[in-house]
Amino acid sequence: MTAGSTVRLADLPLREDLRGKSPYGAPQLDVAVRLNTNENPYPPPPELVADVAASVEEAARELHRYPDRDLVALRGDLAAYLSRQTGVELTTANLWAANGSNEILQQILQTFGGPGRTALGFVPSYSMHPILASGTQTEFVPVPRRDDFTLDIDAAVTVLAEKAPDVTFVTSPNNPTGQSVAPADLARLVDAAPGMVVVDEAYAEFAEATGRPSATTLLATHGHKLVVSRTMSKAFAFAGGRLGYLAAAPAVIDALQLVRLPYHLSVLSQAAARAALRHAEATLGSVALLAAERDRISGELAAAGYDVVASDANFILFGRFADAGRAWKGFLDQGVLIRDVGIPERLRVTVGTPEENDAFLTAATDLATQELF
Amino acid sequence: MTAGSTVRLADLPLREDLRGKSPYGAPQLDVAVRLNTNENPYPPPPELVADVAASVEEAARELHRYPDRDLVALRGDLAAYLSRQTGVELTTANLWAANGSNEILQQILQTFGGPGRTALGFVPSYSMHPILASGTQTEFVPVPRRDDFTLDIDAAVTVLAEKAPDVTFVTSPNNPTGQSVAPADLARLVDAAPGMVVVDEAYAEFAEATGRPSATTLLATHGHKLVVSRTMSKAFAFAGGRLGYLAAAPAVIDALQLVRLPYHLSVLSQAAARAALRHAEATLGSVALLAAERDRISGELAAAGYDVVASDANFILFGRFADAGRAWKGFLDQGVLIRDVGIPERLRVTVGTPEENDAFLTAATDLATQELF
Repeated sequence: MTAGSTVRLADLPLREDLRGKSPYGAPQLDVAVRLNTNENPYPPPPELVADVAASVEEAARELHRYPDRDLVALRGDLAAYLSRQTGVELTTANLWAANGSNEILQQILQTFGGPGRTALGFVPSYSMHPILASGTQTEFVPVPRRDDFTLDIDAAVTVLAEKAPDVTFVTSPNNPTGQSVAPADLARLVDAAPGMVVVDEAYAEFAEATGRPSATTLLATHGHKLVVSRTMSKAFAFAGGRLGYLAAAPAVIDALQLVRLPYHLSVLSQAAARAALRHAEATLGSVALLAAERDRISGELAAAGYDVVASDANFILFGRFADAGRAWKGFLDQGVLIRDVGIPERLRVTVGTPEENDAFLTAATDLATQELF
Repeated sequence: MTAGSTVRLADLPLREDLRGKSPYGAPQLDVAVRLNTNENPYPPPPELVADVAASVEEAARELHRYPDRDLVALRGDLAAYLSRQTGVELTTANLWAANGSNEILQQILQTFGGPGRTALGFVPSYSMHPILASGTQTEFVPVPRRDDFTLDIDAAVTVLAEKAPDVTFVTSPNNPTGQSVAPADLARLVDAAPGMVVVDEAYAEFAEATGRPSATTLLATHGHKLVVSRTMSKAFAFAGGRLGYLAAAPAVIDALQLVRLPYHLSVLSQAAARAALRHAEATLGSVALLAAERDRISGELAAAGYDVVASDANFILFGRFADAGRAWKGFLDQGVLIRDVGIPERLRVTVGTPEENDAFLTAATDLATQELF
């Protein structure tokens, strides 16, 4: 018998605000076509896999020693990559990394949020933002986007002055709706916000592929209030490696040292991420392909009669369904797992391989003939 | 020029309680003999390194996919290991893992601590406990140990009833002093504590090697209030791999799902830890050797006139110095890096290889002739 199996969750002295809650996470179902978590559908190329293995093997010889707590080599490599990608000159002192951008965002909230402080977000957006705020005891203030999910910058400037949040999240491209915010507009938001502005650029490479610049271009002028968080999960096809990072003024990196867990990033993660960065060109080759497929899917969905939100990312929000939950099930029944993100009448599909996208579009065309709208 | 380099830390809207603080962490100095962070001095055997590399290579082929969020395979392997090691029948449902035991302890505090709640510890103990409490907005209540650093169980029972902490930390063996708490005594503490009791067993294998049982033996009877946290950093020589874990009643594992970051543990960490667990017997072969060296060092230190605290772990607290900081510098000047843990008159040395220990003992004998006491 499992030790302690008679104890029930309700018997435990849980924090009051956790009672009755459910864990975050998309259903992990065994379905042929999985287009639900915005993963990159292309496996890493064999030479990257070999380099990761060789790098990890070398690092593993020193597994009995703690990792470099300050991640100096990795931060240097990330700075070099991000400088190339964005055209902004960045150094090791501008970069920081953690186990996924969730840990990055948690560290930011531990530093600049907390009890008695607020974090504001323009919703719908990445659903982890309010969860991370709650986990760090930061009050989350949701501000609705326009009905078409774009950001009304004039209204946002007013609301930032009025609500005076300690932390403001701007997701660009926004997940799950796909729209980017231009740097000039971001600059207005940072000017208006009294606290730190976190631009969550998890999907930035997909937008950069079509000419939309990163918020890192604002660091030189707005570094006292700006943090740009990014991830290797999506464009880099490194979701399993859990490597989130951020670019900010060096003083912000210093501040994060006060809350980061010591030795939070393993030698394996550091070595594997550095190997993946050496193959950035090969991996990012998929980005243009996925952007093209995104536009193809959007076009075909619209042609089939769906309402499609224009996207700069590797996913598309579409609808409108009388019952999004029933439509989600309809796709699942056809072997295609997409995501019900909780927005009424809408579902989100991740851009997959052309074959996966064809399977999705076949299901979508078929479902369009049924009375789901 | 580094972007944003004119911004100063004092300009940032930091959380008030972080102002003026310094990051946690032992100095990482380039010294010949490093006996300061309780690492296992023996590198992993070549067959373990090869298995880690092969396992990571296989896992890396799926790096574009998110990891198993529930760590099912790894938790099963940890349950099998811990069952063998402690003689307590444990299953996957009893186990949970994270990036180092720091993240494990942080998750426990996020679940059972938080604003308005308290965590009690018997000090001096692991210095991350109050830091993690602060990071989760949990008030830390330090209760002094006896002058010889042992735990007065009768007094502890009284103080637990009086202070009624939401979380109680008991470190066994205690870091940095080395003493274990017997399960019968732990049972009395769990009975007396109104909230959860976290037995931090980071160094348990070193104590188990000399016949001191793990607190997991109490899970069947005390599972409603008990969490046993462990790590692969020390005995397993896996500090670089960052793998902490815990054993508890299944309901406690369920509760932790409410605060864990989704996909917190990479496929690399999961694969590498499973590989290391397959070689547990080889790695743990060093434990008996280190326990024997610990006792040799203790004996020689005492013979040289030092005051030595009896230890069940892989480190020794010794003294007494008129000025511990100056003595620490004395060791460093002889090429031996040990740890000033902030206990007046004492320093902590990690048990190294016989050669490293000889170097330390030579320095200690030499310093004993100087007027440091």
